[in-house]
Amino acid sequence: MSRKSIRVELRAARHRSPLFGRPGFLIRRLHQLHCSLFVEETRGHDITPVQYSLMTALGVRGELEQNSLALEIGLERSSVAEVVPRLQRRGLVDRRRSREDGRVKLIRLTPKGTALLRRMAPAVQRAHDRTIDRLSKPDRDVFLLRLIELVEANNDIGSVPLRLRGLP
Amino acid sequence: MSRKSIRVELRAARHRSPLFGRPGFLIRRLHQLHCSLFVEETRGHDITPVQYSLMTALGVRGELEQNSLALEIGLERSSVAEVVPRLQRRGLVDRRRSREDGRVKLIRLTPKGTALLRRMAPAVQRAHDRTIDRLSKPDRDVFLLRLIELVEANNDIGSVPLRLRGLP
Repeated sequence: MSRKSIRVELRAARHRSPLFGRPGFLIRRLHQLHCSLFVEETRGHDITPVQYSLMTALGVRGELEQNSLALEIGLERSSVAEVVPRLQRRGLVDRRRSREDGRVKLIRLTPKGTALLRRMAPAVQRAHDRTIDRLSKPDRDVFLLRLIELVEANNDIGSVPLRLRGLP
Repeated sequence: MSRKSIRVELRAARHRSPLFGRPGFLIRRLHQLHCSLFVEETRGHDITPVQYSLMTALGVRGELEQNSLALEIGLERSSVAEVVPRLQRRGLVDRRRSREDGRVKLIRLTPKGTALLRRMAPAVQRAHDRTIDRLSKPDRDVFLLRLIELVEANNDIGSVPLRLRGLP
Protein backbone atom coordinates (compact mmCIF):
# COMPACT_ATOMS: atom_id res chain seq x y z
CA MET A 1 0.00 0.00 0.00
CA SER A 2 1.44 3.36 -1.02
CA ARG A 3 1.66 6.23 1.45
CA LYS A 4 -0.78 8.11 -0.72
CA SER A 5 -3.43 5.37 -0.70
CA ILE A 6 -3.04 5.05 3.07
CA ARG A 7 -3.81 8.75 3.47
CA VAL A 8 -6.80 8.45 1.15
CA GLU A 9 -8.13 5.55 3.23
CA LEU A 10 -7.60 7.49 6.47
CA ARG A 11 -9.51 10.45 5.09
CA ALA A 12 -12.36 8.17 4.01
CA ALA A 13 -12.43 6.59 7.50
CA ARG A 14 -12.63 10.01 9.16
CA HIS A 15 -15.55 10.75 6.91
CA ARG A 16 -17.31 7.65 8.29
CA SER A 17 -16.73 8.87 11.85
CA PRO A 18 -14.72 11.84 13.13
CA LEU A 19 -13.91 9.70 16.19
CA PHE A 20 -11.59 7.77 13.85
CA GLY A 21 -9.29 10.80 13.93
CA ARG A 22 -8.76 10.22 17.66
CA PRO A 23 -6.24 7.47 18.38
CA GLY A 24 -7.23 7.41 22.05
CA PHE A 25 -10.85 6.68 21.15
CA LEU A 26 -9.83 3.87 18.78
CA ILE A 27 -7.60 2.32 21.42
CA ARG A 28 -10.32 2.53 24.07
CA ARG A 29 -12.79 0.93 21.68
CA LEU A 30 -10.40 -1.87 20.69
CA HIS A 31 -9.72 -2.54 24.36
CA GLN A 32 -13.45 -2.76 24.99
CA LEU A 33 -13.82 -5.25 22.11
CA HIS A 34 -10.94 -7.30 23.51
CA CYS A 35 -12.69 -7.39 26.90
CA SER A 36 -15.84 -8.70 25.21
CA LEU A 37 -13.80 -11.42 23.50
CA PHE A 38 -12.13 -12.24 26.81
CA VAL A 39 -15.50 -12.58 28.53
CA GLU A 40 -16.85 -14.69 25.65
CA GLU A 41 -13.86 -17.03 25.58
CA THR A 42 -13.48 -17.42 29.33
CA ARG A 43 -17.20 -17.64 30.15
CA GLY A 44 -17.84 -19.73 33.24
CA HIS A 45 -14.49 -18.90 34.84
CA ASP A 46 -15.72 -15.46 35.96
CA ILE A 47 -12.32 -13.77 35.86
CA THR A 48 -11.74 -10.28 34.38
CA PRO A 49 -8.75 -9.42 32.17
CA VAL A 50 -7.17 -7.42 35.01
CA GLN A 51 -7.67 -10.27 37.50
CA TYR A 52 -6.08 -12.60 34.99
CA SER A 53 -3.06 -10.30 34.48
CA LEU A 54 -2.60 -10.13 38.22
CA MET A 55 -2.79 -13.90 38.59
CA THR A 56 -0.34 -14.32 35.69
CA ALA A 57 2.20 -12.07 37.41
CA LEU A 58 1.86 -14.12 40.62
CA GLY A 59 2.12 -17.33 38.58
CA VAL A 60 5.46 -16.21 37.12
CA ARG A 61 6.83 -14.44 40.19
CA GLY A 62 5.69 -16.69 43.01
CA GLU A 63 4.98 -14.31 45.84
CA LEU A 64 4.75 -10.52 45.63
CA GLU A 65 4.17 -7.60 47.88
CA GLN A 66 1.19 -5.43 46.82
CA ASN A 67 3.23 -2.52 45.39
CA SER A 68 5.46 -4.83 43.35
CA LEU A 69 2.38 -6.56 42.04
CA ALA A 70 0.97 -3.19 40.91
CA LEU A 71 4.23 -2.35 39.11
CA GLU A 72 4.37 -5.76 37.50
CA ILE A 73 1.14 -5.23 35.58
CA GLY A 74 1.12 -1.41 35.39
CA LEU A 75 -1.94 -1.00 37.58
CA GLU A 76 -2.89 1.59 40.20
CA ARG A 77 -2.17 0.37 43.71
CA SER A 78 -5.75 1.17 44.65
CA SER A 79 -7.00 -1.16 41.90
CA VAL A 80 -4.76 -3.95 43.13
CA ALA A 81 -6.10 -3.35 46.64
CA GLU A 82 -9.61 -3.83 45.25
CA VAL A 83 -8.91 -6.90 43.11
CA VAL A 84 -6.86 -8.95 45.58
CA PRO A 85 -9.58 -9.37 48.28
CA ARG A 86 -12.03 -10.55 45.60
CA LEU A 87 -9.63 -13.25 44.46
CA GLN A 88 -8.91 -14.09 48.08
CA ARG A 89 -12.60 -14.61 48.86
CA ARG A 90 -12.73 -17.08 45.99
CA GLY A 91 -9.72 -18.94 47.39
CA LEU A 92 -7.55 -18.12 44.34
CA VAL A 93 -4.86 -16.11 46.17
CA ASP A 94 -3.84 -15.78 49.78
CA ARG A 95 -2.12 -13.06 51.76
CA ARG A 96 0.26 -13.31 54.68
CA ARG A 97 2.37 -10.87 56.66
CA SER A 98 6.06 -10.83 55.82
CA ARG A 99 8.25 -12.35 58.55
CA GLU A 100 10.93 -9.70 57.95
CA ASP A 101 8.53 -6.74 58.10
CA GLY A 102 5.09 -7.18 59.64
CA ARG A 103 3.70 -4.17 57.75
CA VAL A 104 4.32 -5.85 54.40
CA LYS A 105 1.67 -8.17 53.05
CA LEU A 106 2.74 -10.82 50.60
CA ILE A 107 0.32 -12.19 48.02
CA ARG A 108 0.55 -15.52 46.24
CA LEU A 109 -1.57 -17.91 44.22
CA THR A 110 -3.18 -20.81 46.01
CA PRO A 111 -3.04 -24.26 44.35
CA LYS A 112 -6.66 -23.58 43.27
CA GLY A 113 -5.51 -20.26 41.69
CA THR A 114 -2.62 -21.96 39.91
CA ALA A 115 -4.93 -24.63 38.52
CA LEU A 116 -7.43 -22.03 37.28
CA LEU A 117 -4.67 -20.02 35.62
CA ARG A 118 -3.53 -23.10 33.73
CA ARG A 119 -7.05 -24.17 32.81
CA MET A 120 -7.89 -20.71 31.43
CA ALA A 121 -4.70 -20.24 29.39
CA PRO A 122 -5.91 -21.58 26.00
CA ALA A 123 -9.16 -19.56 26.16
CA VAL A 124 -7.27 -16.40 27.13
CA GLN A 125 -4.83 -16.81 24.27
CA ARG A 126 -7.78 -17.23 21.87
CA ALA A 127 -9.24 -13.93 23.12
CA HIS A 128 -5.90 -12.18 22.52
CA ASP A 129 -5.50 -13.72 19.08
CA ARG A 130 -9.06 -12.92 18.02
CA THR A 131 -8.57 -9.26 18.96
CA ILE A 132 -6.24 -8.81 15.99
CA ASP A 133 -7.02 -11.77 13.73
CA ARG A 134 -8.88 -9.68 11.18
CA LEU A 135 -5.50 -8.36 10.03
CA SER A 136 -3.33 -10.38 7.65
CA LYS A 137 -0.40 -12.14 9.36
CA PRO A 138 2.25 -9.62 8.17
CA ASP A 139 0.04 -6.63 9.08
CA ARG A 140 -0.62 -8.18 12.48
CA ASP A 141 3.08 -8.54 13.25
CA VAL A 142 3.77 -4.93 12.31
CA PHE A 143 0.76 -3.78 14.35
CA LEU A 144 2.00 -5.67 17.42
CA LEU A 145 5.46 -4.22 17.02
CA ARG A 146 4.06 -0.67 16.90
CA LEU A 147 1.98 -1.34 20.01
CA ILE A 148 5.10 -2.53 21.82
CA GLU A 149 7.08 0.50 20.60
CA LEU A 150 4.42 2.88 21.92
CA VAL A 151 4.01 1.09 25.24
CA GLU A 152 7.77 1.09 25.80
CA ALA A 153 8.37 4.65 24.56
CA ASN A 154 5.57 6.07 26.72
CA ASN A 155 6.28 3.99 29.81
CA ASP A 156 7.40 7.00 31.84
CA ILE A 157 4.13 8.89 31.30
CA GLY A 158 1.68 9.15 34.14
CA SER A 159 1.71 7.78 37.61
CA VAL A 160 1.69 4.06 36.95
CA PRO A 161 4.88 2.73 35.42
CA LEU A 162 5.08 -0.82 34.19
CA ARG A 163 8.10 -2.79 35.27
CA LEU A 164 9.42 -3.76 31.86
CA ARG A 165 11.82 -6.67 31.85
CA GLY A 166 9.89 -7.55 34.98
CA LEU A 167 8.77 -10.99 33.97
CA PRO A 168 11.40 -13.52 32.98
CA MET B 1 11.68 -3.49 7.44
CA SER B 2 11.64 -7.08 6.16
CA ARG B 3 9.13 -9.61 7.48
CA LYS B 4 12.02 -11.54 8.92
CA SER B 5 13.44 -8.62 10.89
CA ILE B 6 9.95 -7.83 12.19
CA ARG B 7 9.66 -11.38 13.55
CA VAL B 8 13.12 -11.14 15.10
CA GLU B 9 12.10 -7.90 16.84
CA LEU B 10 8.85 -9.42 18.07
CA ARG B 11 10.71 -12.37 19.55
CA ALA B 12 13.16 -10.02 21.27
CA ALA B 13 10.24 -8.00 22.69
CA ARG B 14 8.58 -11.13 24.09
CA HIS B 15 11.85 -11.92 25.74
CA ARG B 16 11.71 -8.53 27.49
CA SER B 17 8.20 -9.31 28.74
CA PRO B 18 5.88 -12.24 27.94
CA LEU B 19 2.99 -9.77 28.32
CA PHE B 20 4.13 -8.37 24.95
CA GLY B 21 2.77 -11.54 23.37
CA ARG B 22 -0.72 -10.51 24.50
CA PRO B 23 -2.31 -7.92 22.22
CA GLY B 24 -5.08 -7.27 24.73
CA PHE B 25 -2.56 -6.38 27.42
CA LEU B 26 -0.70 -4.01 25.08
CA ILE B 27 -3.94 -2.31 24.08
CA ARG B 28 -5.04 -1.92 27.71
CA ARG B 29 -1.66 -0.46 28.61
CA LEU B 30 -1.66 1.97 25.67
CA HIS B 31 -5.16 3.07 26.62
CA GLN B 32 -3.97 3.69 30.17
CA LEU B 33 -1.06 5.78 28.86
CA HIS B 34 -3.45 7.76 26.66
CA CYS B 35 -5.62 8.45 29.72
CA SER B 36 -2.56 9.77 31.58
CA LEU B 37 -1.78 12.06 28.64
CA PHE B 38 -5.41 13.17 28.52
CA VAL B 39 -5.35 14.03 32.23
CA GLU B 40 -2.01 15.82 31.86
CA GLU B 41 -3.12 17.90 28.86
CA THR B 42 -6.59 18.75 30.15
CA ARG B 43 -5.59 19.38 33.76
CA GLY B 44 -7.86 21.92 35.42
CA HIS B 45 -10.88 21.04 33.29
CA ASP B 46 -11.58 17.90 35.34
CA ILE B 47 -13.19 15.94 32.52
CA THR B 48 -12.45 12.24 31.83
CA PRO B 49 -11.93 10.83 28.31
CA VAL B 50 -15.33 9.12 28.46
CA GLN B 51 -17.08 12.31 29.62
CA TYR B 52 -15.39 14.14 26.79
CA SER B 53 -16.50 11.54 24.19
CA LEU B 54 -20.04 11.84 25.48
CA MET B 55 -19.97 15.63 25.29
CA THR B 56 -18.50 15.44 21.77
CA ALA B 57 -21.38 13.24 20.60
CA LEU B 58 -23.88 15.73 22.05
CA GLY B 59 -21.94 18.59 20.47
CA VAL B 60 -22.27 17.02 17.04
CA ARG B 61 -25.78 15.57 17.41
CA GLY B 62 -27.53 18.25 19.39
CA GLU B 63 -29.92 16.35 21.61
CA LEU B 64 -29.94 12.61 22.22
CA GLU B 65 -31.92 10.08 24.15
CA GLN B 66 -29.78 8.05 26.62
CA ASN B 67 -29.69 4.81 24.56
CA SER B 68 -28.72 6.62 21.37
CA LEU B 69 -25.99 8.42 23.27
CA ALA B 70 -24.63 5.05 24.48
CA LEU B 71 -24.62 3.71 20.91
CA GLU B 72 -22.97 6.83 19.60
CA ILE B 73 -19.84 6.32 21.67
CA GLY B 74 -19.97 2.53 22.13
CA LEU B 75 -20.54 2.69 25.87
CA GLU B 76 -22.64 0.57 28.23
CA ARG B 77 -25.97 2.18 29.00
CA SER B 78 -25.22 1.82 32.69
CA SER B 79 -22.02 3.87 32.26
CA VAL B 80 -23.91 6.59 30.42
CA ALA B 81 -26.44 6.59 33.26
CA GLU B 82 -23.55 7.18 35.68
CA VAL B 83 -21.74 9.86 33.68
CA VAL B 84 -24.71 12.03 32.70
CA PRO B 85 -25.80 13.04 36.25
CA ARG B 86 -22.21 14.06 37.05
CA LEU B 87 -22.08 16.36 34.04
CA GLN B 88 -25.54 17.61 34.91
CA ARG B 89 -24.51 18.56 38.45
CA ARG B 90 -21.71 20.63 36.94
CA GLY B 91 -24.17 22.40 34.65
CA LEU B 92 -22.54 20.98 31.49
CA VAL B 93 -25.55 19.01 30.21
CA ASP B 94 -29.25 19.08 30.95
CA ARG B 95 -32.00 16.51 30.69
CA ARG B 96 -35.64 16.95 29.85
CA ARG B 97 -38.58 14.61 29.22
CA SER B 98 -39.53 14.15 25.57
CA ARG B 99 -42.83 15.84 24.66
CA GLU B 100 -43.73 12.90 22.39
CA ASP B 101 -42.99 10.22 24.98
CA GLY B 102 -42.74 11.16 28.65
CA ARG B 103 -40.66 8.04 29.45
CA VAL B 104 -37.86 9.19 27.16
CA LYS B 105 -35.28 11.54 28.59
CA LEU B 106 -33.38 13.73 26.17
CA ILE B 107 -29.89 14.94 26.97
CA ARG B 108 -28.15 17.98 25.53
CA LEU B 109 -25.18 20.24 26.18
CA THR B 110 -25.80 23.48 28.01
CA PRO B 111 -24.10 26.64 26.69
CA LYS B 112 -21.54 26.13 29.48
CA GLY B 113 -20.93 22.56 28.22
CA THR B 114 -20.55 23.74 24.63
CA ALA B 115 -18.05 26.39 25.69
CA LEU B 116 -16.02 23.86 27.71
CA LEU B 117 -15.98 21.41 24.80
CA ARG B 118 -14.59 24.11 22.52
CA ARG B 119 -12.06 25.32 25.08
CA MET B 120 -10.74 21.81 25.69
CA ALA B 121 -10.44 20.80 22.01
CA PRO B 122 -6.78 21.76 21.40
CA ALA B 123 -5.60 20.06 24.63
CA VAL B 124 -7.57 16.92 23.81
CA GLN B 125 -6.14 16.73 20.32
CA ARG B 126 -2.63 17.08 21.80
CA ALA B 127 -3.34 14.10 24.09
CA HIS B 128 -4.48 12.02 21.12
CA ASP B 129 -1.51 13.05 19.01
CA ARG B 130 1.00 12.41 21.79
CA THR B 131 -0.36 8.88 22.28
CA ILE B 132 1.14 7.84 18.94
CA ASP B 133 3.75 10.53 18.22
CA ARG B 134 6.68 8.27 19.00
CA LEU B 135 6.03 6.55 15.68
CA SER B 136 7.30 8.04 12.42
CA LYS B 137 4.59 9.76 10.37
CA PRO B 138 4.21 6.90 7.83
CA ASP B 139 4.17 4.25 10.59
CA ARG B 140 1.60 6.30 12.48
CA ASP B 141 -0.76 6.44 9.51
CA VAL B 142 -0.55 2.69 8.97
CA PHE B 143 -1.05 2.08 12.70
CA LEU B 144 -4.17 4.26 12.74
CA LEU B 145 -5.54 2.49 9.69
CA ARG B 146 -5.07 -0.92 11.35
CA LEU B 147 -6.81 0.33 14.50
CA ILE B 148 -9.75 1.50 12.39
CA GLU B 149 -9.84 -1.83 10.50
CA LEU B 150 -9.97 -3.78 13.77
CA VAL B 151 -12.56 -1.52 15.37
CA GLU B 152 -14.79 -1.77 12.31
CA ALA B 153 -14.27 -5.50 11.71
CA ASN B 154 -15.00 -6.37 15.35
CA ASN B 155 -17.88 -3.97 15.83
CA ASP B 156 -20.44 -6.76 16.14
CA ILE B 157 -18.61 -8.42 19.04
CA GLY B 158 -20.01 -8.11 22.52
CA SER B 159 -22.98 -6.28 23.86
CA VAL B 160 -22.06 -2.69 23.08
CA PRO B 161 -22.09 -1.87 19.39
CA LEU B 162 -20.79 1.46 18.19
CA ARG B 163 -22.99 3.28 15.74
CA LEU B 164 -20.50 3.66 12.91
CA ARG B 165 -21.35 6.33 10.38
CA GLY B 166 -23.16 7.80 13.35
CA LEU B 167 -21.42 11.14 13.43
CA PRO B 168 -21.53 13.28 10.32
